[in-house]
Amino acid sequence: MEQDDVSVRGAAGRGRVTVRAIAAETGLSIATVSRVINAQDQVSESARRRVQEAIDGLGGRAPATRPRQPKAELPVLVRCPYKLSDYFGALVTAVAEALAAAGRRVLLDVGDSRVDAPVLRELPAARETSGAILILPPEPAEDLRFLQTRRYPLVVVDPRTPVPRGVVSIASAHTAGARAVTRHLLDLGHRRIGVISGFEDWLSGSDRLAGHLAALSEAGLLGDSRLLRYGEPAIHTGVRAGGELLDLPDRPTAIACFNDKVAVGVYQAAAERGLGIPADLSVTGFDDSEISQATAPMLTTVRQPLDELGRIAVTMLTRLLERQALDALHLELATELVVRGSTGPVPPR
Amino acid sequence: MEQDDVSVRGAAGRGRVTVRAIAAETGLSIATVSRVINAQDQVSESARRRVQEAIDGLGGRAPATRPRQPKAELPVLVRCPYKLSDYFGALVTAVAEALAAAGRRVLLDVGDSRVDAPVLRELPAARETSGAILILPPEPAEDLRFLQTRRYPLVVVDPRTPVPRGVVSIASAHTAGARAVTRHLLDLGHRRIGVISGFEDWLSGSDRLAGHLAALSEAGLLGDSRLLRYGEPAIHTGVRAGGELLDLPDRPTAIACFNDKVAVGVYQAAAERGLGIPADLSVTGFDDSEISQATAPMLTTVRQPLDELGRIAVTMLTRLLERQALDALHLELATELVVRGSTGPVPPR
Repeated sequence: MEQDDVSVRGAAGRGRVTVRAIAAETGLSIATVSRVINAQDQVSESARRRVQEAIDGLGGRAPATRPRQPKAELPVLVRCPYKLSDYFGALVTAVAEALAAAGRRVLLDVGDSRVDAPVLRELPAARETSGAILILPPEPAEDLRFLQTRRYPLVVVDPRTPVPRGVVSIASAHTAGARAVTRHLLDLGHRRIGVISGFEDWLSGSDRLAGHLAALSEAGLLGDSRLLRYGEPAIHTGVRAGGELLDLPDRPTAIACFNDKVAVGVYQAAAERGLGIPADLSVTGFDDSEISQATAPMLTTVRQPLDELGRIAVTMLTRLLERQALDALHLELATELVVRGSTGPVPPR
Repeated sequence: MEQDDVSVRGAAGRGRVTVRAIAAETGLSIATVSRVINAQDQVSESARRRVQEAIDGLGGRAPATRPRQPKAELPVLVRCPYKLSDYFGALVTAVAEALAAAGRRVLLDVGDSRVDAPVLRELPAARETSGAILILPPEPAEDLRFLQTRRYPLVVVDPRTPVPRGVVSIASAHTAGARAVTRHLLDLGHRRIGVISGFEDWLSGSDRLAGHLAALSEAGLLGDSRLLRYGEPAIHTGVRAGGELLDLPDRPTAIACFNDKVAVGVYQAAAERGLGIPADLSVTGFDDSEISQATAPMLTTVRQPLDELGRIAVTMLTRLLERQALDALHLELATELVVRGSTGPVPPR
């Protein structure tokens, strides 16, 4: 960047002291003077003092600060260290489009191979980004707190574990969504409802489980741990865990799955055992990804507001970047139950 | 960036002239001297001359140039102005991971809302990126030629239309993939084979159609335009076009679809008409996205080498960035036929 051009504002005799004149007066480089004028970091206290003294000595009025140039702003890091298929792809698209609409550039860090990359610790010092949107960050809370203490603007979308106090986070209303889908199954008469949850230590999994248990409790039922399974949110988990549940002596009449992919696996497990959906078994997913329309029958699921998650994340980050006050530090966005053909009345015994 | 620190190399009396000494001698800022030494742009000819004269006058040996720092390099633009679901998401992930592995940062431009954004024309002048990987670029060939004439490093993945001579492009072997899947249907005895292609003016569509016609021709058959349909590569196209084909007086016994999503729509059209897959109708997709495992029966399809497409794109771009010679300007990567349950012997008449 042509720093000399950018930082010279006004001219001697026209009311403002020039950066060049201050540089000559102080012996500091024009770049350093410019950083002091524009209130940037990495300037020593003595440089600040010398610049102020030179301004006072030369006439008293500081050079104009650099105007806000959106183009010159540093990009926003979007980190989502997973393969961008359906859920993550839609979320990253929503975030990237909202950032572009806000005139901000996106620096991208995605893919399973990036899950252990030591990215966060380097962010404040690297000065390559203005802030970050972290999607389901695998990093421990200490790494988020590290960024927070350095006042690095940060928004977490779909936190995997509880975020430290003061870190802005945004998620779907997992509990309410799971409660709605379980109520739907209870309304259809189901009482033995299997649950295939995600990883045991994921916030989305425990929140959805809480919603499930709340709905059961409202119907006067306690959850049965024998009907609960955990696993990676993928098709193969549905095949395995669905098979285990369907092989129980008193098998469930419905299975609520962590996401649509797991539900696809349960369809396969049911087909292998000659069970019809929904005649013998009702199945529900979560996400309303495109895959939920590829199954026969199509899948009853919970729609996550991915576009809105992206837009809100960008709105919150923008407020942090502009140093505005932020009160609501954890936001939950409403989900929507989408009833399709995979759920039906409980079969007669 | 702390430019003063970065650009001061060596010390007076230890063999090299320092940047600071040159700055003092010439009256130029340290930043400007550093740009001259490091052969960067945006330096006036007179500055270059003054620096050279100062080096000569001060002892003759120029300061060490700044070492190549991958971190300081400009990021690579990855533009894919579509929603990142399955195909595009997997491709962007592969490209981004390969760039990260090469120590390069990724500036992302994605989402349907970005399809008309006038991004390309601004790239060379903006100097925010070192090069670009464009996935299925919607821009006309002139825009690519514009970048080429400005020697802007550029790789096109999955071109929508033929790229100008000299622009590096990479794609799946669409023709060979479609030829293989049509041969598979012919081997099963099918002769009336419907085709649902993508948009009529897409290279991938016309290349796949060519492969289909080549396979038919090898079996002594000519394509039948009444069995050909076009449309957006989405589920609803399969429902509509599949329905039209299945309502023909002499309906096809097999339908080859542009991608897996279109095939999902054909499954729905077949189910609405009481036709079983593959007993009454064989169906094939293209991509081998996750959706192809969600259908019952699972879908026979053509696997695209998305990870390898991403890696090769990055390899080629790296060679352009390093100004290496490049001979093979258009690369095709082999596809693979994946036979599953959706294709079977032609039904008896």
